[in-house]
Amino acid sequence: MLNFNFCNPTRMIFGKNTISSLGEQISKEGLKKVILLYGKGSIFKNGVYDEAISSLKENNIEYVELSGIKPNPVLSKVREAIGLMRENEVEAIVAIGGGSTIDTAKAASAGFYYEGDVWDLFEGKAVPKKALPIFTVLTISATGSEMNSGGVITNEDEDKKWGFGSPLLYPKVSIVDPSVQFSLPDNQTVNGAIDTLSHVFELYFDGTKNTDMMDELSEGIIRTMMKHVEILLKHRENYESRAEFAWCSTLALNGYNGTGRKGDWASHNIEHSLSAFYDIAHGAGLAIIFPAWMKYVQQCDVKKFERFAEKIFNITEGTSEEKGAKAIERLKDFYKSLGAPTTLKEIGVNKEDLPKLADNAAMRAPIGSLKKLYREDILSIYEIAYE
Amino acid sequence: MLNFNFCNPTRMIFGKNTISSLGEQISKEGLKKVILLYGKGSIFKNGVYDEAISSLKENNIEYVELSGIKPNPVLSKVREAIGLMRENEVEAIVAIGGGSTIDTAKAASAGFYYEGDVWDLFEGKAVPKKALPIFTVLTISATGSEMNSGGVITNEDEDKKWGFGSPLLYPKVSIVDPSVQFSLPDNQTVNGAIDTLSHVFELYFDGTKNTDMMDELSEGIIRTMMKHVEILLKHRENYESRAEFAWCSTLALNGYNGTGRKGDWASHNIEHSLSAFYDIAHGAGLAIIFPAWMKYVQQCDVKKFERFAEKIFNITEGTSEEKGAKAIERLKDFYKSLGAPTTLKEIGVNKEDLPKLADNAAMRAPIGSLKKLYREDILSIYEIAYE
Repeated sequence: MLNFNFCNPTRMIFGKNTISSLGEQISKEGLKKVILLYGKGSIFKNGVYDEAISSLKENNIEYVELSGIKPNPVLSKVREAIGLMRENEVEAIVAIGGGSTIDTAKAASAGFYYEGDVWDLFEGKAVPKKALPIFTVLTISATGSEMNSGGVITNEDEDKKWGFGSPLLYPKVSIVDPSVQFSLPDNQTVNGAIDTLSHVFELYFDGTKNTDMMDELSEGIIRTMMKHVEILLKHRENYESRAEFAWCSTLALNGYNGTGRKGDWASHNIEHSLSAFYDIAHGAGLAIIFPAWMKYVQQCDVKKFERFAEKIFNITEGTSEEKGAKAIERLKDFYKSLGAPTTLKEIGVNKEDLPKLADNAAMRAPIGSLKKLYREDILSIYEIAYE
Repeated sequence: MLNFNFCNPTRMIFGKNTISSLGEQISKEGLKKVILLYGKGSIFKNGVYDEAISSLKENNIEYVELSGIKPNPVLSKVREAIGLMRENEVEAIVAIGGGSTIDTAKAASAGFYYEGDVWDLFEGKAVPKKALPIFTVLTISATGSEMNSGGVITNEDEDKKWGFGSPLLYPKVSIVDPSVQFSLPDNQTVNGAIDTLSHVFELYFDGTKNTDMMDELSEGIIRTMMKHVEILLKHRENYESRAEFAWCSTLALNGYNGTGRKGDWASHNIEHSLSAFYDIAHGAGLAIIFPAWMKYVQQCDVKKFERFAEKIFNITEGTSEEKGAKAIERLKDFYKSLGAPTTLKEIGVNKEDLPKLADNAAMRAPIGSLKKLYREDILSIYEIAYE
């Protein structure tokens, strides 16, 4: 186990009928004016917008609104938010949505007090010293952003989909009412499950040794998520499964699961380059990339892949290597059974584009921890993922 | 899963050579004068005292000291600490030790600002409104107090060993260097393991339904702890096992494992009455009480005890009930194999005292959640535990 220094100060308010506590939570902090960030219209349909607004009004909290935040959120929207926030002198941000909205909130929160252009914070040219408090109402469980301090934004002018983070960016309060996810289309539920599983894989297969307790936690999240996503594809409105799904998704990436480990994150980087060029959901991209990465790196930690095979898929026969290889196939089959894509070809990627994707992903190479990956490795992984 | 509202703001600094960061952590908060609380002399022998003092001196932090905090910490010591803290106008508390020292720090932290007698806070006559910041250096993993907001103190005049808690009492920072536990006597390691397992059991067997993810986390902690306490009885200085042990112990009771559940806590109450009258270690008391409680309540949740049998002891044969009963025996055998007592008789409890113990534990009856226990139930459990 590696040394760690860990603190997650986000307050998590979880369960049925919890959105009505939003206004009180903001008011408690002495805050009176906020910006409301959200995406398209889904929060109007599922009642979340009305609930949140009522709660703000009851607590006499003023608000301005910025809508239209898209999946794979973009830098231009972050800049727009910062402009509006400064103009209106807001004191906090309320993000209503999923990871895209929350990540936009985080970038805007740090950018609000920064004099230069907010992209500097992504490039490492500056470090945030102060940030506006963030409150979130989660409407789709996937990224874990509701209880961590990081985010991912696409700089659309430079084709860079990059992550950033700061301890200042933990949401002050996150409200998760799993029942608001009853109305999610199946493919979004599936993408959320795959995103969650991928976060666990990044931490689980990172090459750190002696991580028994964290391996147990990871395996618990994987098994629970695999069980409940299948239930939800049959029974979209099963509250208990929505709750297990939502809490798994948060726990996968709220820091605990990473204690004592370094994390790998190569697959996320490789996927980011994919969704920077092709407009596909992050979860769908990960369904394609992760099994390919696993095949490419299995030899670097045969024992861990064997453990994965035994603990997740109850595979007990064969050599260590055979078990691991079988588990990777089983994972791919599982993704297929959920209706997720598992090859680049089927989502319309041109084979000729692979070198360009590899160039993009290698911009900050070497990436990864279990195996340090350079451009040629990344290209090989795209090729494995192709068909 | 039940609704929950959860926030754990403690900063955990975990790993080798971390104690030297103590002074800096205090200094960062702008604090200049502290009280140092500790127990007997062990922190002089294992070097922890010297490391902590050097770190305070390097950061120009003044300190006064109060030593002599005993296992099953007492109210008179809390009062003594409060007096000394007021006299010296300290700004924070540094607890160096295990749960007893940290719990004393918590009670003193809340009592410092309270005008009446600190025991009022235990009796529920008042609620803490303000508390001094607490920093801890953990020297024995067991109670989880280093990363939660509760504690247990014995009022020796009234034979009451009672718990208390407040969100104000989360330690600001806790430093856990597992290597300082190399020198612990085996029985203390064993008691710490049993205390940890018992915390998990209180949450696991509480009767709440649909708690898949938390059951996975609980089972992970149980398996990891059972594995590593056995290693430590053979290899006291195995760092990796000390680290797994320490982190399991914290995770058992830092709030996560309790999310979405109510917890039972009857066995802890029953044990507290035992150690209020007999000077036995809390862990040893729990080794005796918990299996007896399990026998008494197994019928209330046959399926959960079956799950426990399967997931922890790989028991696959027999009826649900038989499997559960076998698992309870296996747990008792495991405790015996660690050298822990498993009957009241062997620790010298008089059979005639059982009604008195039951009276004491029933002071706040009914206790428990899986089964609400009244005096007669509690007496039955003591009788099962007797021999």
